[in-house]
Parts: sequence; C-alpha cells; structure tokens
Amino acid sequence: MTDAAIASRLGHEHVADIVEFLNGKTAEEATGVVSHMPLKWAVEVLDQPQFHDACEVIEALPQEKAVGILEGMSADRAADVLRWIEEPAKGRLRDALSPEAQVAIDHLLTYPEGTAGALMTTEFVSVPSNWTVQQTLDHIREVERSRETVYAIYVLSPGTRRLVNTVSLRRLISGNPGDSILSVANPYTPITVPPNLPQEEVARTISKYDFLAVPVVDTTGHVLGIVTVDDVIDAMIEEQTEDVQRMGGMEAIDEPYLEISFKEMIKKRAGWLCILFISEMFTASAMQFFSDELEKAIVLALFIPLVMSSGGNSGSQATSLIIRALALHQVRLRDWWRVALRELPTGITLGTILGVIGIIRIVVWQQTGLFDYGEYWKLLAVTIGAALIGIVTFGSLAGSLMPFLLKRLGFDPASASAPFIATLVDVTGIVIYFSVAWLFLHGTIL
Amino acid sequence: MTDAAIASRLGHEHVADIVEFLNGKTAEEATGVVSHMPLKWAVEVLDQPQFHDACEVIEALPQEKAVGILEGMSADRAADVLRWIEEPAKGRLRDALSPEAQVAIDHLLTYPEGTAGALMTTEFVSVPSNWTVQQTLDHIREVERSRETVYAIYVLSPGTRRLVNTVSLRRLISGNPGDSILSVANPYTPITVPPNLPQEEVARTISKYDFLAVPVVDTTGHVLGIVTVDDVIDAMIEEQTEDVQRMGGMEAIDEPYLEISFKEMIKKRAGWLCILFISEMFTASAMQFFSDELEKAIVLALFIPLVMSSGGNSGSQATSLIIRALALHQVRLRDWWRVALRELPTGITLGTILGVIGIIRIVVWQQTGLFDYGEYWKLLAVTIGAALIGIVTFGSLAGSLMPFLLKRLGFDPASASAPFIATLVDVTGIVIYFSVAWLFLHGTIL
Repeated sequence: MTDAAIASRLGHEHVADIVEFLNGKTAEEATGVVSHMPLKWAVEVLDQPQFHDACEVIEALPQEKAVGILEGMSADRAADVLRWIEEPAKGRLRDALSPEAQVAIDHLLTYPEGTAGALMTTEFVSVPSNWTVQQTLDHIREVERSRETVYAIYVLSPGTRRLVNTVSLRRLISGNPGDSILSVANPYTPITVPPNLPQEEVARTISKYDFLAVPVVDTTGHVLGIVTVDDVIDAMIEEQTEDVQRMGGMEAIDEPYLEISFKEMIKKRAGWLCILFISEMFTASAMQFFSDELEKAIVLALFIPLVMSSGGNSGSQATSLIIRALALHQVRLRDWWRVALRELPTGITLGTILGVIGIIRIVVWQQTGLFDYGEYWKLLAVTIGAALIGIVTFGSLAGSLMPFLLKRLGFDPASASAPFIATLVDVTGIVIYFSVAWLFLHGTIL
Repeated sequence: MTDAAIASRLGHEHVADIVEFLNGKTAEEATGVVSHMPLKWAVEVLDQPQFHDACEVIEALPQEKAVGILEGMSADRAADVLRWIEEPAKGRLRDALSPEAQVAIDHLLTYPEGTAGALMTTEFVSVPSNWTVQQTLDHIREVERSRETVYAIYVLSPGTRRLVNTVSLRRLISGNPGDSILSVANPYTPITVPPNLPQEEVARTISKYDFLAVPVVDTTGHVLGIVTVDDVIDAMIEEQTEDVQRMGGMEAIDEPYLEISFKEMIKKRAGWLCILFISEMFTASAMQFFSDELEKAIVLALFIPLVMSSGGNSGSQATSLIIRALALHQVRLRDWWRVALRELPTGITLGTILGVIGIIRIVVWQQTGLFDYGEYWKLLAVTIGAALIGIVTFGSLAGSLMPFLLKRLGFDPASASAPFIATLVDVTGIVIYFSVAWLFLHGTIL
C-alpha cells in the first residue's frame, strides 16, 4: 500500500490507534504516512505524547508542513517536541513560527524538564471576575476548539489579572445565566502549584484533589498555564518506568525496549553495573582479611552465599517499603528514627525465623548423613543461626535508612537504593559472619 | 479542642485536606470528629478513597449515621467500603440501606477487586439518542449534583438501551440547542471496556485515549457503569506501590508504613523471605558438591560473593527492563526470542567489561603485594574473567526471560521477578564458577 493510501485509510480510526499503528513503523515510514495526511490529522497525531517518533518526523517533513503542524499543536506539546530536536533544525523551525507561537514556546522551554512549568499548557480558559455566567458560557463556546481543556475555568481579577477563583464547567452550566461568574465558583481558596514543582508533586496534587487540571501560578499570583490530568497520567507512567529501572540498578531508559540501540543499552547498564562491581570488590577484600579463618574452617565458606543473600533480601524489602512510603508522603525525613525503631524488632524477628530454618537444615543434613559438617557441626549450626539474626537485622535497618540518607543528600530515594543496599549488606555481612564465627568457633576449629 | 470544635473548624478546608488531617489521627479520633460533622461533609470525607480509616469509622458510627453516609456516598466508593467491613457488621449495614442502594452495591460487590467492574461507578449520565442537545443540557443541570462526572455523556438506543455513542460536555455546550444529540457525538465507535478487565488495562485505555471516563459495557452492549480518571489515578498509585514492593521481594502492603501492625509486617515479609532462603539453600548444596575443589583452592572462595552478585545485578537489570516493557505492551509474549537475541550480546559485552575490571583487580593486588593469590594467580585471574562473562550473560538471559515465563504461567511478571532471579542466578552462578575454574585450573591447583 502506498503512504497516501495508508494515510487515507487511517482517517477512520481514533487518533490513539493511528499513533499505535505508526509506533510500529520506522521513523521514515511514519514520516511518509504523516506527510500524506491532511494537516488537521497530522496535528492530532503529533499532539499525542505517546507518538514516539515526533521529533524525527517533524525534522524530516518539508519545513512548511512541519511549521504548520507545530502551529496547530498545543503549545506544551510543540515545546516538548522542539525541546528534543537538535540545532540547527530546532532554531530553523522555531524562527519560522508565528511571533505568538514563538513567545509561547520560548516561554515553555525555559522551564526544566520534569517540572510543572514544562508540563503545563498555556491554552486554558480564563475570564475576568466581573463577567456573568452567560458571558463565560458564550466565551467558552467560542474558544472551545483551541483549548486543551474547558472543564476548569480560571477567574482573574479584572485589573491585576491575578487568579481569584476557579469554576468547573459542570457548576457553570447549572448556574443562573445572569448571575456573576463568582456565584458558581468553588467555595475554597484555589489550589495552585509553582512552575518549578517536580512533576511527581504535581501528580500528587491532582490525585489528592481529584482535579482535571491544576493552575501553575507564579509568585505574583498570575496564572502561567495549567497542567491537565492526561499529561499527569503520562508523566506518572514515565516516572513508574524510571523507578522500576532504577530499582533494577540501571539508568532510566525512555525508549521502548526493542527500539534502543545496542550502544545505548550498554551505556545505560554498564555504568551502574561497574559501580556495583567495584563496590562489591570489598567483599573480596573482606574475605582476604578472613582467609586464615577460611583456611582453618573451609566449612564456613559453604554458607556464605546463603547468609549474605538473606541480608540482601531483607534489605531490599525494607528499602522498597520506605521508597514508596517516602514517595507517598506517608513518612517524612524526620521520621527516620521511628522507622529505625520499627525495623529493629522486625529485623530481629525475621532473622530469627531464618536462623531457625538454617539450623534445622544443618541438623537434618548432618543427621541423615547427606553431608558431614565435621566434629563441631552443632557449633556451626549455632553460628549460622546467630549470623542470620545479625545480618538480617543489619539488612533491614540499613535498607530502611538508606532512602532517608539518599533523600537527605538530595538524591531520588528510588535511584539504586536496592542494589546499593545489596552491596553494602554483602560487604558488612561477611564481616558479621566471620565475627560471629570467631565468637562461637574460637578454640575449636578456628 | 473537642471533636465538635475540630469538626466545625474543618468546614473551611478542602475535603482532601480534611482527609489528610484525619489520616494523621487514630481511627477512634477520626470517628469522633466525623460523628460531629454535618451529614453532607461526612459524606464528602468518606467519599475520598484516600481516607484510610473509612471502614473503621463506618463500623464505629451509630448505625443511623453510618447508613446515612453510605447512602450519600457514590455507589462505587460505598461498595468499596462495605467490601472490607467484616460480617456481621457488613450485612447489618447493607440491610439497613434503601432498596435501590442495596441493588447498586450488591451489583458492584459481585466484581472481583482490581477489575473495571469493581472500580466503576453506576452514577453516570445517559440519554436516549432521540433527545436534542437542549434536552440533554437540561437533564444534566438537573442531575449534576448526583453524578460522579457529567463531562462524558452516554447516548443509548431508546429501545434496547444499548450504547450508541458518547458525547463530551464541551462539544455539547457548543452544539445547536435544537439539533439531535447525535450531531455533537464523537465521530468514532465508542471505546469501552468489559467489566472483568484488570485495572491496569483500564488505566492504559484511559491514558491512551486521554479520556476523563471510560464506559464499562457487558457483552450485550449495555453500559454497566463508568470508570473515571481520578479512580484510575488512585488505582495506578496503588499498583505502583505494589510493583515496587513485589520487586523488593515481599507481599504488597496497602496500609501506610507507620500504621501496619507488627504482626502484619512480619507476615507480609517473612513468607517471601523464607521462600527465597530455602531456594538459596541450593547454593549451600552446590558449594558442598564442590567442597573438594574448594579445599584444594581456598583462593577460589574469595571471589564467590563478587562473581555471584554480578550475575544477580545484571539479572535484575534485565528483569526490570522487561517487566516495564511488558506492562507498557512494548513487547509481547511472542517476542521472547527477540528479547533473548538482544540480551545474549548485551550480556556478553557487559560480562566482558566486568571481566576485564576483575582481571585488573587481581593483577594490581598481586603485583603491588597487597595479597598473594599463589603461584597460579594468572590462571586465577583468567578464571574470574571468564566466569564473569558466563555468569553475567546467564544473568541477563535468565533475567529477561523470567518475566515472560511468569506471564505465560498466568502470574504478574512484577511479582518477585527480581529476587527470584537473584536466587536462580546465585545457584547457577556457583555451578558456572566452579566449572570454569575446573576448566582453567585443572592440573594446577585443582
């Protein structure tokens, strides 16, 4: 099928389905199809943040068509696309836009990625507070097509243009046409966000208040734009992906798995892997330190992976619990000692449970003759049990406190907490293990 | 301050802030405050899914007040609250409700938790397709207060009451009052979800199409209810928490960290910890199997934690990448071999990078005299390097394929993939390590 034929057939589909179809094609193929679409459709397709190849398509289209599409797109999305196009194409496209579009986009581009300012759109409905319900309704009917949402209406003070209140469309249509717009306004002070607020916090505000949009307001009380709920959902999905990947111990990847280049994949994964590998080298150093003990009691080596991994597992449980509790504001930085006071008995209990299982394991193997742990096997069993209590307790404590430390130092607690903890607990675990062993086995096999 | 005084002061706050205040109190304190609120406020507070103690408060309030609140709440939320109240209180409260409320709630309670049916509300706006724009607008003004959203209007066939089309309020108010409601309807076939669709998929649908609500439709084409975007956001946040906790190797916890009882905490964590511990015992068995080799070359033990953890780290990277790619439908079950074909060279490359670092480490320590790895230190270095390539490659492959396997078997890929992989890779890692060692060191120290 030719690009033109595909383009015309796509006309009957929902735009989200067209985007899904185009995402399955290469950037060149997508450009071919988009170039044969009527401008109106092309604008709709490019307006979807889910469309992966937006930058490539805009760059590859003839300048006139690209500029037409950018002008038709919502300002926030157009700024988003331009943000990732490289110079000189970026400057060339920007300069070809209409002066108003240039101002709007330049403004949006000044906010760093991942903030309310970068997420917001400047296409919202605002009316002066001396208007009536009817005037507002008429205005909305007129501008409806060019606004991202008309369900939240921002009422500004007529002189200063500062935000006075918000009105929802559902309350507006129930209002008396001749009454003041303020008669249907929300009864409480409008809830706003500053332009530099991180997008997770914007999402939290929208979800807390069940808003369809939240106004972004500067320190002087002027509305800079609004963030709509669909942009927040997209941001949340992106955030969730980054969190899962960071917890998996790698840099976040924003492209779909099968589309990342091999080089990029290695770059994103090798960095953390090397950092963790080099930190983990301390385990070799710790083992070297205890190599005399190891030589005397080779039987101790058998349980090193078992004991160490238990510490890592309990640590990663505690870390993931606290990462989420911090993200949902269920605990705050100053609560770190309350968390520590909970994790201490939790760790001791969990360690005791594993310790008992570990002791049973050794007793069963020894008694049934599956393996001979030597003359002092009872002491060895006690050593393993006690070491497990110590290591699991340490793992729980360290795992729960690491996210606080990372946050205190200004990092995202989700970033690499889990692999960090595993490494920290591994190294400390060896020290705990051999110390406990020395305590119980000194004078016998050590 | 007395409960009554607190209740009256809270009247000036946004309901979401009242909920946040009450969440900081115990269930008894919250019940005291709610019992002094006017019914209208109490309904609004209990209607917020963010309110943690809803079940406890409803159970503790005098029956008359509790029933009044449940009747005033949206049906989906009331059903959600009743779902978690235990018998006999649940039956007693349900029987005291009005017959209509009973029908609506019973209906919602038949859908399992986490599906579109359980998430939906039955309070939506629907009109027959032979109505005009004006008739619809008048109807909305009348029912606005009792509907969760009026921004999406569902147009039903007058006879069969099947879903014909959807209309957005923004298009409705721009329509010509005398025209048919269908004149402002969406141009494409309505997008719907079945009642048994998992909530993640509902969220995906809403986010893909940028909807404010999606209709839940049975196989005969009748609208059972709608799922609104704010319920989806709440579900997404819950989902995200569960994913992070499951990836951390524990059962998901739905209460805030500081409010979980000690017993509950142990229960949620001990289960997985024990499963992982018992699986990890195979490392001890593997080590026992190689105990002769270990006795001959104790120096091999020094690098076990380092080599094993590298396999675990590369595995958890691959797993977290694929968990998200599957969740976002970037890869499908049948793509498993494409993923394997990518992970194989990726694993070899990453393993080679770590292998080179590992070799350098041994050479430097040996040459500077920091530690003496014995006569055959060069062969040992080669062993470590080769084992790292093998183990990291195995980790990447196993880590990327485990989520496919879990999904194929009907489990959630996010559930415990990461700790599972670490355990699997640990056990296999020991076998790989000693096999490689035998290959290179046989005839020298082995």
